[in-house]
Amino acid sequence: MFAHLLENLHRQNPVIHNITNYVTANDCANLLLACGASPVMADDPAEAAGITARSRGLTLNLGTFHTHTLPAMLAAGRQANALGLPVVLDPVGVGASALRADAARQLLGAVRFAVIRGNLAEITALLAGTGGQQGVDDAVDAIRPDNLDRCLALVQRLAARTGAVVAATGALDLAGDGQRAFVVRNGHPILRRITGTGCQLSCLTTAFVAANPGQPLESAAAALCALGLCGEIAHSRLGPLDGSASCRTWLIDAMYNLTPRQLEEGARYELR
Amino acid sequence: MFAHLLENLHRQNPVIHNITNYVTANDCANLLLACGASPVMADDPAEAAGITARSRGLTLNLGTFHTHTLPAMLAAGRQANALGLPVVLDPVGVGASALRADAARQLLGAVRFAVIRGNLAEITALLAGTGGQQGVDDAVDAIRPDNLDRCLALVQRLAARTGAVVAATGALDLAGDGQRAFVVRNGHPILRRITGTGCQLSCLTTAFVAANPGQPLESAAAALCALGLCGEIAHSRLGPLDGSASCRTWLIDAMYNLTPRQLEEGARYELR
Amino acid sequence: MFAHLLENLHRQNPVIHNITNYVTANDCANLLLACGASPVMADDPAEAAGITARSRGLTLNLGTFHTHTLPAMLAAGRQANALGLPVVLDPVGVGASALRADAARQLLGAVRFAVIRGNLAEITALLAGTGGQQGVDDAVDAIRPDNLDRCLALVQRLAARTGAVVAATGALDLAGDGQRAFVVRNGHPILRRITGTGCQLSCLTTAFVAANPGQPLESAAAALCALGLCGEIAHSRLGPLDGSASCRTWLIDAMYNLTPRQLEEGARYELR
Repeated sequence: MFAHLLENLHRQNPVIHNITNYVTANDCANLLLACGASPVMADDPAEAAGITARSRGLTLNLGTFHTHTLPAMLAAGRQANALGLPVVLDPVGVGASALRADAARQLLGAVRFAVIRGNLAEITALLAGTGGQQGVDDAVDAIRPDNLDRCLALVQRLAARTGAVVAATGALDLAGDGQRAFVVRNGHPILRRITGTGCQLSCLTTAFVAANPGQPLESAAAALCALGLCGEIAHSRLGPLDGSASCRTWLIDAMYNLTPRQLEEGARYELR
Repeated sequence: MFAHLLENLHRQNPVIHNITNYVTANDCANLLLACGASPVMADDPAEAAGITARSRGLTLNLGTFHTHTLPAMLAAGRQANALGLPVVLDPVGVGASALRADAARQLLGAVRFAVIRGNLAEITALLAGTGGQQGVDDAVDAIRPDNLDRCLALVQRLAARTGAVVAATGALDLAGDGQRAFVVRNGHPILRRITGTGCQLSCLTTAFVAANPGQPLESAAAALCALGLCGEIAHSRLGPLDGSASCRTWLIDAMYNLTPRQLEEGARYELR
Repeated sequence: MFAHLLENLHRQNPVIHNITNYVTANDCANLLLACGASPVMADDPAEAAGITARSRGLTLNLGTFHTHTLPAMLAAGRQANALGLPVVLDPVGVGASALRADAARQLLGAVRFAVIRGNLAEITALLAGTGGQQGVDDAVDAIRPDNLDRCLALVQRLAARTGAVVAATGALDLAGDGQRAFVVRNGHPILRRITGTGCQLSCLTTAFVAANPGQPLESAAAALCALGLCGEIAHSRLGPLDGSASCRTWLIDAMYNLTPRQLEEGARYELR
């Protein structure tokens, strides 16, 4: 099922515009190049909308968020909406400050998102308008087999409220559109020890969605499976002296080498 | 002696807030994750103090310093002081411009630092209020066996003046609290050919200090030994085609794998 | 011919000031350290000129360009001109927005550049004052054997107009000073799948030019050969599971290990 989605991505080489944080921008760009997309990062309000207009999709990421970045995000998001281009929101640390919560509220009010991708704390904070999050990687392990139904309900509630597909990551990953949902079992815990794997996933989601119009749920699920599978491959290469930094390199290597058939055979998910 | 400090760090998984430069922020985040801490980077004045309040320690780093970042640094630093959280200053390139010297002066006037971590040129510039530094990596080799006593005197003078533990890095590393001092002999010269190993060390220091309240001198020395030891391990893995970039990866890998016992046995230091 | 230029770079260890983007700044710094230079990144207008004055060369890079960075670029560029230090322009994505086109126009009006380094779309946009560029990596493959003469004419036209050596990269690379030109055949297509290899090349060019006064054309060509050769070495190390991220690491490793003799023997170019 996902092979075709990756084929489309490889064939189209879509330009993806990302307004994102300075901590993980390099990894995001390299991951996009590895998956067959072409990244552009541009966050000056004077050019943001114009850069979006030359792109096929837009990622808005709240990591290292700045007050002065919001106008660029709003302008780019509106431009994408006007042109029918998909927009993906990564609400990094949205529960950690009123600044980010307000920014998310304004973005959700002004921009129609194709996908919202976050960890459970972030999804919860978006639902509540508030949250008890500590660090930005907090609660990423929160989706577990024993609380799956509760998490799924949260995902579907935010999806119904926003009209976006919601992708929530943790020990298990979920993607829901308010009605149907994928439960994804790819991935490895070591990914939580590498900064920016969530940011990379959000960019990858934009690339999949951009290359597969009309299939945001399947595209978001394919991105979850693809990144998780690459994480499994990367982890399997680790020798006794290797650790998170080698895994970071091999994650992108695995994406560079990932074939549609490999994704099809390695994807582990169920449709709910 | 240091095994226990690393055990505390591993067990507590402290959130560390870093206001730092865009050149090495990714490595800093990955190093913090590798050592068992949880990084958050946030430098908008509107949220800086609030993010600090949700953290266990704060790093302020002057690399790629901007005038508009100072209010965030001051707000976060004061918040940390108010809550009794440790603050570590990395005065990158402080001798290279009046802008950075002024920023350092304001920070030292407004914030009580647990540790100041820099190379000898930076320590000297902080003492003098001026300096003859060229590049930011300048003079990092300045602490040598033959001038150790002179360097130690500088370290202790700044420690006495500021009330902070001062950690100075070079061919040898020093950490002093105005009275006692550690001379650390771990490390490898190749670390100077990798950008941001000093920045990573400062973040690691924050993590050690945060996890070990009341022991800033021992924590700073443990961080020096741990990073140096990881540098030795990373360097020992280099084959004939490998260089500084592989070493950068393996430095973080080594931190990911570093055990308390390995640190205890590999730490090379003396107490003065 | 190029051995001597690299020897000079290794011997002089020049400090290079870079005002550049946050996506690839880390790679740029590590590449500069690997080639024997010493990087400093500083873009606050209050210190930019002063940092330049302590350096041996300046790189101005338009990636993730911001309106508020232009004053720093202009101040640093003028300072470099006043002191006779070489300035290299990397007009990243200049054809993609009016903002960047205007910035380039102002920089070219106010600063005398030693070298302009871009892909063909960027060179064309600088010539036209406009362009049809999509992503920032667009058209990088545009210089091919079958259109070499046309590309060479564009390069020499921009060189004649600006007084700068123009280095254009693609499947083939060109460097021209308006009269003479080098055609460089080093490199590997995988470099286009790694973000920032162009940015790294621009910084490397600054380092070569700074270490070899009076030889900007030869220095620019040497930088093209050196980066391309390191890309070949890096690619040759890739095993079946390795990809773009390992290649990124090994590119910098190769620069770290590159000897003058290796460059001399591996450089593939012709003088036109």
